[in-house]
Amino acid sequence: MSAYEVTERTRIRRIPERGTYDRETVHKILDEAILCHVGVAIDGKPRVIPTAILRVDEFVYIHGSANSQLLKSLIGGAPASIAVSFVDSLVASRSGFNCAVDYRSVVIFSDAAEEVTDPAEKERLLDAFVQHLIPGHKVRPPKRQEIGATKIVRFPLLEVSAKIRDVGVNDFEEDYVLDLWAGRIPLRTVAGPPESCSRVKSGIDIPAYAANFERRK
Amino acid sequence: MSAYEVTERTRIRRIPERGTYDRETVHKILDEAILCHVGVAIDGKPRVIPTAILRVDEFVYIHGSANSQLLKSLIGGAPASIAVSFVDSLVASRSGFNCAVDYRSVVIFSDAAEEVTDPAEKERLLDAFVQHLIPGHKVRPPKRQEIGATKIVRFPLLEVSAKIRDVGVNDFEEDYVLDLWAGRIPLRTVAGPPESCSRVKSGIDIPAYAANFERRK
Repeated sequence: MSAYEVTERTRIRRIPERGTYDRETVHKILDEAILCHVGVAIDGKPRVIPTAILRVDEFVYIHGSANSQLLKSLIGGAPASIAVSFVDSLVASRSGFNCAVDYRSVVIFSDAAEEVTDPAEKERLLDAFVQHLIPGHKVRPPKRQEIGATKIVRFPLLEVSAKIRDVGVNDFEEDYVLDLWAGRIPLRTVAGPPESCSRVKSGIDIPAYAANFERRK
Repeated sequence: MSAYEVTERTRIRRIPERGTYDRETVHKILDEAILCHVGVAIDGKPRVIPTAILRVDEFVYIHGSANSQLLKSLIGGAPASIAVSFVDSLVASRSGFNCAVDYRSVVIFSDAAEEVTDPAEKERLLDAFVQHLIPGHKVRPPKRQEIGATKIVRFPLLEVSAKIRDVGVNDFEEDYVLDLWAGRIPLRTVAGPPESCSRVKSGIDIPAYAANFERRK
């Protein structure tokens, strides 16, 4: 149970040694994502939409307004593909051909999105979305109509693969002798100082979870 | 000519006040992107793939191996949707319902990808991809077979929209009195110190464009 089954759609064709179906690796990449890109086909034409993502166990969840066309399409049975990706480094090689990025990505396929309809489960999941975004953040309890106005859709992690490039410079052997610099420039996401809402009540300080916020890795 | 025409596919339905068709705004968001997510429909089922993106004038370009199934599908006439997105801030509100992110995104639709086949134009574009990734980076000239082994596909910017949320906390009026902290946590991408390739020739220092690298905004 430690790896996802490889299917026709998830088999990595381009540079297969970068592909992995390892469950823990897939989970870790998904858990770092705030946004995913969801693709659906409408009348045979693709539409890609960025939206928040949350993984819990072997499902990923997206949510939105009860009026969302995307969510309605998915609940109606439209197949989906969901991708998340991170650029970890810019790879400056000695040839343009070998310039690249080190990256991590996950691509999911699903023909069976499921709407979460149980209000108690929806409440737990909406709280999990908040905690995924800003761990430790405290909010007032949700109202019944807020839960009703929100649609949550989940996708079982059945057809999924990850692809990772982490080798940095990988030049052609004959290029290493060139008088050119090559290397990688690591990129990372950092949080700046929190900016309190102008209407925060006096006496309420910036909490530690916000002041010390670090993007999970 | 300062705004893109609104079409059935690009009209922003959800929270239309966040939508913009302003050409300069769209260009600026696209120019910040290293990766985009390209969606195609294969046998009516969507597939979303992360890949490098470059904008020049009123086209966006992607490239890859001459064997790439994605690029072959696109050149064969498969319609595409391309998205880029950035999370600028995590928005910690007083209700879970109003927790959000401030973001900028662009979504492109195209039914008419075009392959770039002229070798001189391909050479210029491949150099532009390198300069987009790491401005100032010097590489050896490309070889003819490298240009031949690379497919470049471009999409005219005809059906395109941007969506921006930048308002931070936007709570329900009755929630502002609550004894809860609210605010936004800005996120940004930063570059770490460059790591030279272990085989860089002695005497070649890290160049200024790498040492002082800053992600464009």
